[in-house]
Amino acid sequence: MRIKDIIVTPIAISDPPLLNASGLHAPYAIRIITEIISDDGFSGVSEIPCDPTALKILDEVKKIKDQIEPYNFEGFREILRKRFGDKKEERGDQSWDTRSISHVESALEVAIFDLLGKKHKKRVCDLLGGAKREAVPFSGYLFFKYKGAGGELGFDIDENTKGWDKKRQEEALTPEQIVEQAKAMIDEFGFESLKLKAGILEPRLEVDSILALKREFGKNTPLRIDPNAIWSFETALKFGKEMEGVIEYLEDPVRGQEEMARLKKVVNIPFATNMCTTSFEDLNKSMELNSEDIILLDHHFWGGFTPALKMAEMASGLGRGISMHSNSHTGVSMAAMVHFGASIPHLASSLDTHYPWQKDDIIKGEKIKIENGSVKIPIGYGLGVELDKEKLAIAHKNYLKCGITKRNDEVEMQKINPSWKFSKVRY
Amino acid sequence: MRIKDIIVTPIAISDPPLLNASGLHAPYAIRIITEIISDDGFSGVSEIPCDPTALKILDEVKKIKDQIEPYNFEGFREILRKRFGDKKEERGDQSWDTRSISHVESALEVAIFDLLGKKHKKRVCDLLGGAKREAVPFSGYLFFKYKGAGGELGFDIDENTKGWDKKRQEEALTPEQIVEQAKAMIDEFGFESLKLKAGILEPRLEVDSILALKREFGKNTPLRIDPNAIWSFETALKFGKEMEGVIEYLEDPVRGQEEMARLKKVVNIPFATNMCTTSFEDLNKSMELNSEDIILLDHHFWGGFTPALKMAEMASGLGRGISMHSNSHTGVSMAAMVHFGASIPHLASSLDTHYPWQKDDIIKGEKIKIENGSVKIPIGYGLGVELDKEKLAIAHKNYLKCGITKRNDEVEMQKINPSWKFSKVRY
Repeated sequence: MRIKDIIVTPIAISDPPLLNASGLHAPYAIRIITEIISDDGFSGVSEIPCDPTALKILDEVKKIKDQIEPYNFEGFREILRKRFGDKKEERGDQSWDTRSISHVESALEVAIFDLLGKKHKKRVCDLLGGAKREAVPFSGYLFFKYKGAGGELGFDIDENTKGWDKKRQEEALTPEQIVEQAKAMIDEFGFESLKLKAGILEPRLEVDSILALKREFGKNTPLRIDPNAIWSFETALKFGKEMEGVIEYLEDPVRGQEEMARLKKVVNIPFATNMCTTSFEDLNKSMELNSEDIILLDHHFWGGFTPALKMAEMASGLGRGISMHSNSHTGVSMAAMVHFGASIPHLASSLDTHYPWQKDDIIKGEKIKIENGSVKIPIGYGLGVELDKEKLAIAHKNYLKCGITKRNDEVEMQKINPSWKFSKVRY
Repeated sequence: MRIKDIIVTPIAISDPPLLNASGLHAPYAIRIITEIISDDGFSGVSEIPCDPTALKILDEVKKIKDQIEPYNFEGFREILRKRFGDKKEERGDQSWDTRSISHVESALEVAIFDLLGKKHKKRVCDLLGGAKREAVPFSGYLFFKYKGAGGELGFDIDENTKGWDKKRQEEALTPEQIVEQAKAMIDEFGFESLKLKAGILEPRLEVDSILALKREFGKNTPLRIDPNAIWSFETALKFGKEMEGVIEYLEDPVRGQEEMARLKKVVNIPFATNMCTTSFEDLNKSMELNSEDIILLDHHFWGGFTPALKMAEMASGLGRGISMHSNSHTGVSMAAMVHFGASIPHLASSLDTHYPWQKDDIIKGEKIKIENGSVKIPIGYGLGVELDKEKLAIAHKNYLKCGITKRNDEVEMQKINPSWKFSKVRY
C-alpha cells in the first residue's frame, strides 16, 4: 500500500468570543483537515491547528508523498525532520502551541492511523495497545466571554432559544454568570467536573468564580482553574493558598518550570501543565525541579498519538498524572482525543474539550455526543468518524471568507479594547 | 539529573555447543554489559550482544554522555543517529541480528529505564504502561547439540550430576535425544511449550524430532520449529504440510518476506519471524504480502523497550501475534525480557529464552527462577536485578581470555568439520 494522495483543507469553524490570557477568540477558529488516500482505496483523516507554516510544510509533504510508508511511523518523522530541519521548535508564550512540525507529524500520523484502522477493520484505540476504557470522561470547560456565539452563529437569542444553545451566546463576566454557564453546560452534557479558563480578568474575580462554583456544585464536582501562566508568583501564591482544598488542580498558575516548582513547594494543590512540560526534552528538568503533578498531553502538539502515548506510559510510571489539553476543534479532533484518551493507561482526571462551544462540524451525521460528561469510543473502524464533504466545503469557504490565517487573540481583543496588549505576566 | 558515567564491560559466559543454521555456538557467548551512573548516585544496567562495532559506538557514546538527558528517550536516539550516520543498517543473513546502532540504542534505553525505575522506586514494566501480567510464560528451547556444556563448564558428567545439569551437557543429535532433552528441561523448569531450533541437520530428522515430541507430550504442549530460513521453498512446503495440525507455529521456514508469503498461502500453520520483519521499515511490505502471523520482537534488536513496545501495540492491533525472540544471555537480559514481556498488551505465545543453557550469570544471588515455565516479574525497582561485581569481573576476564570478539558460528563449526560452510539456503 502506498499513499496516493494527501488532501489538505484549511477550514474555519464558528467560535464564540471566549476570553483567555492571550486575548479574545476570533469569530472563527481555524483548523487544517488532512485526508490521506491510499492506492488501494482507503482514506484517513486528521485535524490540527491551522497556521501558514503548517500549511506550507504540508504542501511540501504532498510532493514527497511517495516516500511515506503508511506502516512505518518512524520513517515519516525522519523524512520530515530531514527536510524541514531539526532545529528545536519553540512552543511559544501564548496559551496555544506553535510547533508546526510537531503539528504536521500529528496530522500525518493520525490520518494514517485512521486509514490503517479502516483498512484493517480496527479501531484506532486498538492500534494503540487497546482501549483501557470504553467511554472517556471530559470536563465542562467554562469561559469568561462576551456576548455572541461567533461566526455566522452570532444570531439574536429569542424565546425559542433555550438551554445551552442560549447560554453559549450570552455574556459571562461575573461569578454569577459563570455559575449559570456551568449549570447550562452540565444540564446539556452531564459533566461531572468543571474547568475555568482564567488569566484574563482580575484574579480576584476569577477566583471568586471558582468559589461560587464550589458553593453551587459542592464537593462532588472537581474544579480546575487555568490562568495560562499569566499570574505573577505573588498573585499565584495568594490565590493558590486560597484555593487549597477547593480545587482538583491548578493549571499553569505561573510561567516556566522553575516558577512552577517554586510555587509548588508552598501551595498545596496539584499543579497541571500544558505550557511548561510539553515535550520529552522538557522532562529532565520537570523531574529535577518537580514542576507539576499532571501533564496535559495533546496528540496535536506532541507529534501524534504514539509519542504522546509513550509519554503517557512513561510519565505516569514516573508518578506524573496524565490527562489531556484541548483547543477549539471539530468532531475529527474529538474522535482522535477519545481514542487517545481511551488508550492512556492511567487517567488522572477528565479531559479538556472546547467541543460544546463549537456548533459547526465537518463530520457526517450529528455532532459527537457527550453524555454524562463522557464520550463513548465512536462506533466504526479507524477514528469512527467520516468527513461530510459538503460541510467541509462550507468550512473551507468560511476559511477563505473570514480572512484569518493565523490565530491572534490579541488583535481580536484590540477590536474591542484598542490599547490591550498581551503580556507574559499580567497580574 | 545528568549521566555521570557509562561503564561498558564486554563479557563472555559459557555456552554449550548448540547447533543452528549458522553453525555451532562457541564455548562462550559474548555480551556487553552497560552500566549508566547518574550524578545523584543511581545506576542502571543493560545487556546486548557483543561485537566490535557496538563496543566502538559505546566508546564514542561515553565521550558525549553529557548530551544524554535520561528522561529524553528521543533525544539520545537523535544524537546516536546524527553521530553514527543514519544509513540503514542491515539485519544480516545469520540467525542473529547485526544492527549495532539498534543494539546500542537498546543498551542505553534499558539501562536508563533501570536507573529511572531505581530512582523513582518503580518497576521497569510500570514505566512501560504497566504490567499486563505478573508472570511471563517462556517455552523450553531445545537444541541439537554436541556433548559439552561450554566454556569452563565442560566438565565430565559423573554419578553426582543429575537432571538438567546432566542433560544440558549431553549430546542431542537424534529425535530420541531431543525428547530426553525436553523431558529434563520440563522437569527442571516446568515449561508448557517447546521450541526446537532446527536448520542444521537433515530436515527429515529435524521434523521427525518434532513428531517424536508430539507423540511424547501430546496435544497440550504447543510445539514450534525454527529452521532460521535455511530451507528451500520445496523443503519447507513438504515438511510444512507434514506439520499442519502438529505445531503451534513455524518460524522462518524460508528466507525473506516474499518467500514467507508465498509459502504461507499453501501451508496451513501460523508463521512466526524474527528474520523477515524486524523493523518498522519492514512492516509495509509485511502487511502488503502477509508474510507472517507472529512477529517475535526483541528489545535488543528494535532499539530498546519503547520502539519494540510501540510495535507490539500497533502490530497486534493490526492482527499480528506478538511474542519474543532470544539469544544466549545472562540474568540482566532475562529481567529485561520479563519486564518487556509483562508490558506487551496481547501475548500470542510464550517467549523464547536460552537462559536454561547458560550456567554462568552476573547478577547478585541465584539465577532468575523459571517455575511452571514462567518467570515472575523480579521483585524490586527498575529491572529488579543487581550486578554482582565479582561475577562480572570473572565474566570480563573470560571475555579477554576466550579471544572471541565477534560471534561466528561457522568458524566454530569448522573446528569440527573443516569443510562446513554457512549457506543462505541449505536444504
